[in-house]
Amino acid sequence: MESEIQLTPSGRLKHFLSVSGLSRALLTEILDTAESFIEVGERNIRKVPLLRGKTVVNLFFEPSTRTRSTFELAAKRLSADVLNLDISTSATSKGESLSDMLENLEAMASDMFVVRHSQSGAAHFIAESVTPNVAIVNAGDGWHAHPTQAMLDMLTIRQHKGSFEGLKVAIVGDILHSRVARSQIRALNTLGVAEVRVIAPNTLLPNDVECLGVKRFTQMEDGLKDLDVIIMLRLQKERMQGGLLPSEQEYYRLYGLNQQKLAMAKPDAIVMHPGPINRGVEISSDVADGPQSVILNQVTNGIAIRMAVMSMAMSGQTETNTSRKEALE
Amino acid sequence: MESEIQLTPSGRLKHFLSVSGLSRALLTEILDTAESFIEVGERNIRKVPLLRGKTVVNLFFEPSTRTRSTFELAAKRLSADVLNLDISTSATSKGESLSDMLENLEAMASDMFVVRHSQSGAAHFIAESVTPNVAIVNAGDGWHAHPTQAMLDMLTIRQHKGSFEGLKVAIVGDILHSRVARSQIRALNTLGVAEVRVIAPNTLLPNDVECLGVKRFTQMEDGLKDLDVIIMLRLQKERMQGGLLPSEQEYYRLYGLNQQKLAMAKPDAIVMHPGPINRGVEISSDVADGPQSVILNQVTNGIAIRMAVMSMAMSGQTETNTSRKEALE
Amino acid sequence: MESEIQLTPSGRLKHFLSVSGLSRALLTEILDTAESFIEVGERNIRKVPLLRGKTVVNLFFEPSTRTRSTFELAAKRLSADVLNLDISTSATSKGESLSDMLENLEAMASDMFVVRHSQSGAAHFIAESVTPNVAIVNAGDGWHAHPTQAMLDMLTIRQHKGSFEGLKVAIVGDILHSRVARSQIRALNTLGVAEVRVIAPNTLLPNDVECLGVKRFTQMEDGLKDLDVIIMLRLQKERMQGGLLPSEQEYYRLYGLNQQKLAMAKPDAIVMHPGPINRGVEISSDVADGPQSVILNQVTNGIAIRMAVMSMAMSGQTETNTSRKEALE
Repeated sequence: MESEIQLTPSGRLKHFLSVSGLSRALLTEILDTAESFIEVGERNIRKVPLLRGKTVVNLFFEPSTRTRSTFELAAKRLSADVLNLDISTSATSKGESLSDMLENLEAMASDMFVVRHSQSGAAHFIAESVTPNVAIVNAGDGWHAHPTQAMLDMLTIRQHKGSFEGLKVAIVGDILHSRVARSQIRALNTLGVAEVRVIAPNTLLPNDVECLGVKRFTQMEDGLKDLDVIIMLRLQKERMQGGLLPSEQEYYRLYGLNQQKLAMAKPDAIVMHPGPINRGVEISSDVADGPQSVILNQVTNGIAIRMAVMSMAMSGQTETNTSRKEALE
Repeated sequence: MESEIQLTPSGRLKHFLSVSGLSRALLTEILDTAESFIEVGERNIRKVPLLRGKTVVNLFFEPSTRTRSTFELAAKRLSADVLNLDISTSATSKGESLSDMLENLEAMASDMFVVRHSQSGAAHFIAESVTPNVAIVNAGDGWHAHPTQAMLDMLTIRQHKGSFEGLKVAIVGDILHSRVARSQIRALNTLGVAEVRVIAPNTLLPNDVECLGVKRFTQMEDGLKDLDVIIMLRLQKERMQGGLLPSEQEYYRLYGLNQQKLAMAKPDAIVMHPGPINRGVEISSDVADGPQSVILNQVTNGIAIRMAVMSMAMSGQTETNTSRKEALE
Repeated sequence: MESEIQLTPSGRLKHFLSVSGLSRALLTEILDTAESFIEVGERNIRKVPLLRGKTVVNLFFEPSTRTRSTFELAAKRLSADVLNLDISTSATSKGESLSDMLENLEAMASDMFVVRHSQSGAAHFIAESVTPNVAIVNAGDGWHAHPTQAMLDMLTIRQHKGSFEGLKVAIVGDILHSRVARSQIRALNTLGVAEVRVIAPNTLLPNDVECLGVKRFTQMEDGLKDLDVIIMLRLQKERMQGGLLPSEQEYYRLYGLNQQKLAMAKPDAIVMHPGPINRGVEISSDVADGPQSVILNQVTNGIAIRMAVMSMAMSGQTETNTSRKEALE
């Protein structure tokens, strides 16, 4: 069970692998903790000593300067020491197994691994089987999950809408290949919004997408009606070549968010996007930069959410390790 | 106007983009501030808390390990958190626009961007149009300016000559393609030296070089006479292939600084070079390592100047942002 | 003499280049200091302020993410500022000489260089001729030495065996090309073990290996008898192509350590390996992960040894520089 791996016996976070299996109370605790770090980000000295003397290793098996930078900044604002490892160029090329490499890093007294991997389940595997005593934070694994992205989106929604109650939210774009969408759907349902919709051409929707607890729409006209929140996904341009999509122009005509389509949602609907934006492909510039866009708020919240998750998981893991050591003595 | 972009309403530095438009008083303040950091560099604990809790992002669109390292060290000695971004391998490759990337970094609560770019005017553009509330420091843009290099040179001259009054200074080498030379000429004239000369073959001099406030020389014999300060420029070897220059040997024979040519200047003339040195191309080893060389002093001063500029711009920018927030409340 | 370069007039460490020339007392001081840092690694806040305000530059002319990471973590736990320079991509490519580059780094007020180089003697050369006032730590030079690896091995042996007295230790594998083996042999003899053995095919043993103070064995059956400590070396797979070795399978059959061969040593013998491990080539998985393996202890000790060596060399170097400055005043 994902919940058991992620939690201490007393129910505190010790890894952050997935939104799945976490209760509404725990997700709310993450949002509340992040909110307190927003205030830190507005101070002249944006630093708290919560992770002082702790070592955070950014283990990026799949390169992502943007995501890595947000975790690096979050860790440094918590006063942690940060080690960036780009694994493609590292010891695995010397024929060392992944397990050996991770156990070596653990033996160097690393406290937390932030893991990005192209394989679904990589962060889970590490937390369960390789280094369970190191706090693992999932920074994106294959098509499976990108839970810090989902939680920063939740924080942004709560800031602008006050609560999740009664909200209608749609996710628009390539649901099929999106780890972000899977995490968002789970988080929205756990936090109790009224309705989660997905809007995409059939070729970009999983067959059984309704099982995730969403309503399926293939037309923007239908899906945008009465919406409070519109979450646009980034179009991975490489999908174009796979024959799953018509041209960029055609995609933009049908699913790109412009002012005209935005007008179909509620007048106070907010527009979100995980970035980086393809302007003129999934979103028009006037919408991206317009008054309903909260895209840059998402970025600011991304630092706060990562600080929250890192400090909570480190605290839970430290508690667990301390109990284990005391039990051994 | 360059001066307006760089200064707060009360005339304090908030970006450092160019020497142009800065008054003699402000340049002198930079030199005096740097002088105080020289003393920090000689302590056993070389650290001051001026930028504690601030985030400095090194944005290098053009790779330069040397320059990046000096800014990184300067920022760390000011206790800042530093994020190094090598942009060629970063998100811009995902089709994200430069503006979007910078606004994202700003939204992560970055306080300062140190910008190196192959396009002249890049740092200005960012300060004016993209992220005016982030302090921008120009670490070299195209052929336009490299103002921290010029200021460390000024500090070195003042240390060795006491003041700028009455000094005759020559810059020798590829003036045409040198952002360093442009910044040096501006700074020397603002600080009131008696005479600035440029010495180079005609193919390496801008047509209208006299407009910059210099005397043009094409022969070392003429230009070196009565000099107090000789600033050698690095020869970019790729110019050789462009047909602008004869062979390296020929260049060295005509414009390379050796003991014999050095003897044409004043006996207490100092020899400067921004590094890295091409020994035997623009300067002989015995001159580079000789008693009149102050090349390593320039390097030491480079850290102090960068600490000065970073702390002054951060302070001016923080003041501006605080006033703006208060006005909004 | 290596000893003279490495020591202050009063016999304290100021560079750490090689185990050669260091006394048993000094090696023991390194081990004792490291032991005190082991305790720091077990605290919740793993940080001591010994190198606060000091700048450590990791100069890796030969890439090694693993070794670089251990030095980076060790330096950060000592509160130093760390600058990582990957030299292959740095200024040397601009035609700058190594000496010029290092003198530049020294002029930036760097306090310590951690040097990894493919040429034997590189760290010595730098300490002797280039930047003697910067503390130099050798992180591996050609086939010559890898002294921090040897010292972490000594610490691991002492932890498990109490002392070095009466111990029989064998090093198994490619002695000929191993800088680690050279440093280990020197350290073991200086610390006074009863017997050091090398076990390898003749093609992987130096001709005059006995001069180093070891017994030569070409059969595992003979060499493993009565052993207290077995140190396996990593097999560099590129040696295979040089015709020095039969196939990997054949090597494993003859020199790979499995349970059956391990049983030939003393029942409480410990098994060591510098990592990364080639499982099934030089060691079987059940031995690597078995109760006699102390491989992960070696990794943990690697951080402590590096903290010890860095803090001792920095202290000796600072003392020397302070005396020199006072003498000049």
